[in-house]
Amino acid sequence: MPELRKDPIIGRWVIISTERGKRPADFIVQYTPPKGGFCPFCPGNEDKTPIEIMAYRSGKSLPNTPGWSLRVVANKYPALRVEGDINREGDGVYDKMNGIGAHEIIIESPDHNDTIATLSEKQFEDVLWAYRDRIIDLKKDIRLRYVLIFKNHGETAGATLEHTHSQLIALPIIPKRVTEELDGSLEYYNYKERCIFCDIIRQDIMQGIRIITEDQDFIAITPYAPKSPFEIWLLPKKHESYFENAQKHQYENLAKIFLDVLKRMNKVLNNPPYNFILHTSPLGNGDTRHYHWHFEIMPTLVKTAGFEWGSGFYINPTPPEEAAKFLREAKV
Amino acid sequence: MPELRKDPIIGRWVIISTERGKRPADFIVQYTPPKGGFCPFCPGNEDKTPIEIMAYRSGKSLPNTPGWSLRVVANKYPALRVEGDINREGDGVYDKMNGIGAHEIIIESPDHNDTIATLSEKQFEDVLWAYRDRIIDLKKDIRLRYVLIFKNHGETAGATLEHTHSQLIALPIIPKRVTEELDGSLEYYNYKERCIFCDIIRQDIMQGIRIITEDQDFIAITPYAPKSPFEIWLLPKKHESYFENAQKHQYENLAKIFLDVLKRMNKVLNNPPYNFILHTSPLGNGDTRHYHWHFEIMPTLVKTAGFEWGSGFYINPTPPEEAAKFLREAKV
Repeated sequence: MPELRKDPIIGRWVIISTERGKRPADFIVQYTPPKGGFCPFCPGNEDKTPIEIMAYRSGKSLPNTPGWSLRVVANKYPALRVEGDINREGDGVYDKMNGIGAHEIIIESPDHNDTIATLSEKQFEDVLWAYRDRIIDLKKDIRLRYVLIFKNHGETAGATLEHTHSQLIALPIIPKRVTEELDGSLEYYNYKERCIFCDIIRQDIMQGIRIITEDQDFIAITPYAPKSPFEIWLLPKKHESYFENAQKHQYENLAKIFLDVLKRMNKVLNNPPYNFILHTSPLGNGDTRHYHWHFEIMPTLVKTAGFEWGSGFYINPTPPEEAAKFLREAKV
Repeated sequence: MPELRKDPIIGRWVIISTERGKRPADFIVQYTPPKGGFCPFCPGNEDKTPIEIMAYRSGKSLPNTPGWSLRVVANKYPALRVEGDINREGDGVYDKMNGIGAHEIIIESPDHNDTIATLSEKQFEDVLWAYRDRIIDLKKDIRLRYVLIFKNHGETAGATLEHTHSQLIALPIIPKRVTEELDGSLEYYNYKERCIFCDIIRQDIMQGIRIITEDQDFIAITPYAPKSPFEIWLLPKKHESYFENAQKHQYENLAKIFLDVLKRMNKVLNNPPYNFILHTSPLGNGDTRHYHWHFEIMPTLVKTAGFEWGSGFYINPTPPEEAAKFLREAKV
């Protein structure tokens, strides 16, 4: 019998096919890199990107020249612009504002042939530090309300340039998906006076069936009511609302467990395209003690179709407990 | 300057690129039919589908034999099962219930080579009647709360069988997307004592810029804050919460305008893959006077990536006013 499961945070019901659970080999999804050609992200081509916002460099190399190990630049075709004041305006029943914000590219390695999974732990830790440094910097801009950081790996997952990079979009509004999580976790907090994510971590450690791996700082689980098959969450065990407030040892350990989990996913699903998204509190140091930052990783295994548009979720052919077992037992 | 626009119903902000608006030819999306081979939906193969739930037949042909013009069968691999009682159950912080529901296929034509756009007005009107007849029938089952009806056209849009068909999934819960629309429109109704969809129709008729076409009963518009480029909504002008309560002349006129709009879309976007979804009130004749049934049509032009998963919408490179102009001016 299929099962309906409710996401404990935002209250979305999803359908899980528990009987004819699809095994990893049933998902035939080819990783295709975006088309090649000239690469503006490679060392030597620094003048082909918009100006450098920041970079991690060893030695004495100058901005916008080679010598960097990680580089953050503005998106050449930004979805939002950083200049100007925010103007909200009504038009009858409709509301709009001008598109103030930032759209940045985090180039994760100078090596064109790298992917996240081939980075060293130190390199990936630097990527996490770059996320943090950019959030800290953008927090000073009081026009901005939220920083959305995400990664598209592979053409199917929406990547348009091959050279490994993440994206950052800073918004003057809080996106609906984030509001849902904030509202849902606040409702739970008001009722229980506990963080729902902390409760999930406690229960999943006790039950064990959805755990992929854990260390002293982090736990990797498949969520109870996943949006899509083989979805993975990475959560800090110690409660914290803001990603940028993590301790140094947490970034170190996060880099390790994150790479470990990506390698497990690559092994089990044969290098699928994927997205990951940082879920963190809005900018502004508001009281979000009910919220718990985390990463969500989603291999791109299924197509968004009418049912998904109409319902807001995928019919999930692999119970998260089975997905967790495959990932837990993967040798990497 | 890009623009942020707020969906007036569910409050989701979206980003619209107003400057470098993408023109139809910029979207290179090939329609690919799902793989061919033996077709269980063709006349003569009636015994290869689960038992017939209903069919429109001329003459005296028997159920589960050829002679039908439209046929509704259970899905061979249903996401939900119709047998059993609903049992809700908790597991610590988690909630689940057994997957009671229905999953049906509406085979829209006996001709394997048809698509919706090649159906006659009469044939497509029959498809709409079939949607209605199935809703009316499923309404009797008090375990069910919502009937989600949708169409996937083309492989990219999620179709897995080539022979033209829609799907129906009857659920014992109300999907989150639907709840959002119900809650949002109720909030507006409580404040204004008017239906927000009626207000949208009034304003869009007055402004004209987002109208594709209209007749006495229906209006086809591009929504002010679309989830994706070239999204189209078809709304009845007269307020009605329940699709199944439409008048006979409305089904007639809906078939006409729906086909007209699909042909315009096919012309402008060169036969794209697409999804459409019926948005209607939950089963049960509840008081949903704030809600207004409609169809949403979405050509599959862009890929779901990290930003979309994190925010709940696409960065829309074509303002709906431009999309409407292309569709309005298309000669079909």
